[in-house]
Amino acid sequence: MSKVIVALSTSVDGIASGSSEQDFMAVHEAVLGWVFNLRSWQAAQGMDGGEDTAESRLWAQEFERIGAQLIGRRMFDFSEPYWGDNPPFHAPVFVVTHRPGPRVEKDGGTSYSFVTDGVAAAIEQARAAAGGKDVLIAGGLSLVQQALAAGLVDEISMHVAPVLIGSGARLFDNIGETQVRLTPINALHGDGATHTRYRVERR
Amino acid sequence: MSKVIVALSTSVDGIASGSSEQDFMAVHEAVLGWVFNLRSWQAAQGMDGGEDTAESRLWAQEFERIGAQLIGRRMFDFSEPYWGDNPPFHAPVFVVTHRPGPRVEKDGGTSYSFVTDGVAAAIEQARAAAGGKDVLIAGGLSLVQQALAAGLVDEISMHVAPVLIGSGARLFDNIGETQVRLTPINALHGDGATHTRYRVERR
Repeated sequence: MSKVIVALSTSVDGIASGSSEQDFMAVHEAVLGWVFNLRSWQAAQGMDGGEDTAESRLWAQEFERIGAQLIGRRMFDFSEPYWGDNPPFHAPVFVVTHRPGPRVEKDGGTSYSFVTDGVAAAIEQARAAAGGKDVLIAGGLSLVQQALAAGLVDEISMHVAPVLIGSGARLFDNIGETQVRLTPINALHGDGATHTRYRVERR
Repeated sequence: MSKVIVALSTSVDGIASGSSEQDFMAVHEAVLGWVFNLRSWQAAQGMDGGEDTAESRLWAQEFERIGAQLIGRRMFDFSEPYWGDNPPFHAPVFVVTHRPGPRVEKDGGTSYSFVTDGVAAAIEQARAAAGGKDVLIAGGLSLVQQALAAGLVDEISMHVAPVLIGSGARLFDNIGETQVRLTPINALHGDGATHTRYRVERR
């Protein structure tokens, strides 16, 4: 069965996003800087450049496993204009929201569907649309944390950039208080970040 | 010149210690579980067992670089009875405290000196005593965070255990709010934890 994946970049101190609008771009650059020059990432954005490194191949492997994605409403509203007519998902996207809306078809395999009955229901719809591939919970942080707290995540792919940020929103805030065992299943110390994929062990 | 090192174990969500007394031992076991069966660690405790793994050799390398250690007063008061007559430091230890006291000599190369004029002064005394080796800021968390916030740390050695804990005291709380660049200088994905050593880049 297809798996539910969280894949996020953080600083060494676990910051995944700025907590204020001023911080947002600085944190974004600091934790995601490793990705922008990868050939695989650039290809997904419709660009024809970047370098074919071990990290580029890791990113490609991770991307190719994904058959559908979940995103939160705030992330959708903020970013949708930038994603344009040929968005970088190249897969069905399920937006978890309180506001219903008609499904939107885009170029390159992306569609936007609006799911109003919660993250678990959105995962089920995404799984059905994923064609046997995995489901990525792409963000924002609040959606990722909801899914982690509800025990809905099978694998966590961490990309840790070599920087301390000190303040901001942490990937693992609000995930509950019980010890959850992880099993490392893949690892790469790349030029731009340290990458570890963990399987979440069910109790 | 000898370096100032922080070396700590955390969970994947960055928890280094329990925030309540009930949590303390559970978190301790979860984040330090990787260390207890290493041959090198057992040898430092005066025990003659454990396994000679890659992680044991990493721990030994890290330990052999250390010529003096700093600890906070609360850690000293809590743990000193357990450390006994032949403590596991095997090096001069400088206790950062407000309460002065005479230097105490123990077996196996350990001594306890009480420094009342702050962490920077304690580092200078430890450096002078380290015989050209490095100075380890061993804990507690509050002392480690003071040293990080004051820009006194040259290298950070992270041992990340594969577990999410969800609540507790984070290694990187209270370290200030400025981006600090790190450079990875060593890495090992071991059986018990993921280990990354970073150099702290001065601005």
